[in-house]
Amino acid sequence: MRVFTRRLLVLRAALRALSGSPGRARVQEGRGAEPLLPGAVDRYGAVTVELKDIPLEDTSEGAFSSLLTDCVSGWKLEGRVAVWLHVPLALSRFAAAASTLGFRYHHAREDTATLVLWLADAPCRLPGYATHQVGVAGAVVDESNGKVVVVQDRNKTLNTWKFPGGLSDQGENIGCTAVREVLEETGVRSEFQSLLSVRQQHDHPGAFGMSDLYVICRLRPLSRRIRFCREECVRCEWVELAALAGPAHSNQTTPITARVARLLLHGLEHGFHTIDLSMEEIPAVHSGRFYQLYHRALTS
Amino acid sequence: MRVFTRRLLVLRAALRALSGSPGRARVQEGRGAEPLLPGAVDRYGAVTVELKDIPLEDTSEGAFSSLLTDCVSGWKLEGRVAVWLHVPLALSRFAAAASTLGFRYHHAREDTATLVLWLADAPCRLPGYATHQVGVAGAVVDESNGKVVVVQDRNKTLNTWKFPGGLSDQGENIGCTAVREVLEETGVRSEFQSLLSVRQQHDHPGAFGMSDLYVICRLRPLSRRIRFCREECVRCEWVELAALAGPAHSNQTTPITARVARLLLHGLEHGFHTIDLSMEEIPAVHSGRFYQLYHRALTS
Repeated sequence: MRVFTRRLLVLRAALRALSGSPGRARVQEGRGAEPLLPGAVDRYGAVTVELKDIPLEDTSEGAFSSLLTDCVSGWKLEGRVAVWLHVPLALSRFAAAASTLGFRYHHAREDTATLVLWLADAPCRLPGYATHQVGVAGAVVDESNGKVVVVQDRNKTLNTWKFPGGLSDQGENIGCTAVREVLEETGVRSEFQSLLSVRQQHDHPGAFGMSDLYVICRLRPLSRRIRFCREECVRCEWVELAALAGPAHSNQTTPITARVARLLLHGLEHGFHTIDLSMEEIPAVHSGRFYQLYHRALTS
Repeated sequence: MRVFTRRLLVLRAALRALSGSPGRARVQEGRGAEPLLPGAVDRYGAVTVELKDIPLEDTSEGAFSSLLTDCVSGWKLEGRVAVWLHVPLALSRFAAAASTLGFRYHHAREDTATLVLWLADAPCRLPGYATHQVGVAGAVVDESNGKVVVVQDRNKTLNTWKFPGGLSDQGENIGCTAVREVLEETGVRSEFQSLLSVRQQHDHPGAFGMSDLYVICRLRPLSRRIRFCREECVRCEWVELAALAGPAHSNQTTPITARVARLLLHGLEHGFHTIDLSMEEIPAVHSGRFYQLYHRALTS
């Protein structure tokens, strides 16, 4: 619901004088007042203001600060619980102005920063922003000889074998990341089979202090010839799972690689259904899009 | 490695005139030049500049823009691949100045925005920021009677049973979120047993357009009395797994709730080891901290 806060006629004059372009303001002629900062109210009772939709290019930080102070007072009186302020990069000076009222960054992407202020007396119930990056590795298992493709990273611990992998791009499915990263790093084409393990780690230095989820997938090879990326890797080989899993080689793999190698050996012997989380695509209730659900398959 | 870029003496005068506080600048006396924007170079060849450490309070957007333009030219000549610019909220006006050189927001939290500019001729290899929020639900299974605690959300589809849950706080382990949310929503105390399923969904409206990972955990009840949160739920009951799993009730649960109920019924009959991803805590290689690894337990 789009609402308009009309208050303090005096600010109209200030905004006009500073913007020098009253004609572009959303004036409601003949009403004796005009919308100052138009905001949309959501079902939780929070107001959202899109600064890009308001002609503020020539407005000073000081004038904006007065305007926002008045609007916030009004929203409080109206019982709004919070204010979301979307600030385009070109108007970034208004973020500092908002901060004097208590606004803080919620998140920023590309050319927009989103600030937020909790208004209600009740404890803050604002939702957080994305907290995790997702890294995915692919264990490409050749069932004909029990070998798997492993790499030694150029930038990581030397002489340590691990499964090729990397970070998911925004909007990329877990299985797609595994297949893409394996191809980029090793030259081996593969297809997604299942999800094998999930690791959660917090305060991750490689994630700007946020959390990291590291997922290992089982992949089936579609080609076997290695042409590895020399920018990312120093070595890349097909190695026997038994060698990666064995205690004698524990100093040449990461603990998680060794564990997943043992899982895969178990899968080779007893069937991969004993270790897999298989994937099912299910339509989302309202959007008509699909999501991916991973869990143990029930074969009985 | 901390390095100092010394270039264009003329800018020293400009900065001094505008800041009015030359004594606070990091002047290297007797060198004939002073560091303009000190930056740290990382192992990838990118420069990081912390504006909070530089006395720029009284510097105008225009003067900063000139200063940054010169520094960026210098970093390019030095072969730097990228520039990370940390901008405190109080100096947010400099984000707009940086944007005219091509800087864009990478992320922002609390009182700092981070902008970045890729400098190298090679394709951009900048790491992204956190892409996923993590939501966790808890299926508290009473093995003595085959019942599980389910709720009907106040803000979601009416008359639909689902497992209680909510978003992980930053730095919170998956199992802790499940136990905390179940207690908050239902009043039932429980302990973490295993991870059962993972769902990935992109462009999530409840995640500010980012991605959502929804994890369902199996929990063991430590208490059974329900005292549910009336702000979040309209109903909360112990319900038979068979009722949730059956096709006759499919319109009263979400598809994922029905699937996990069928998994849990299978676990009740054949042992939970057939459906669980169990958790293992493993020390991180360098930090001495622990991470949580979830995968199928090998019972053989």
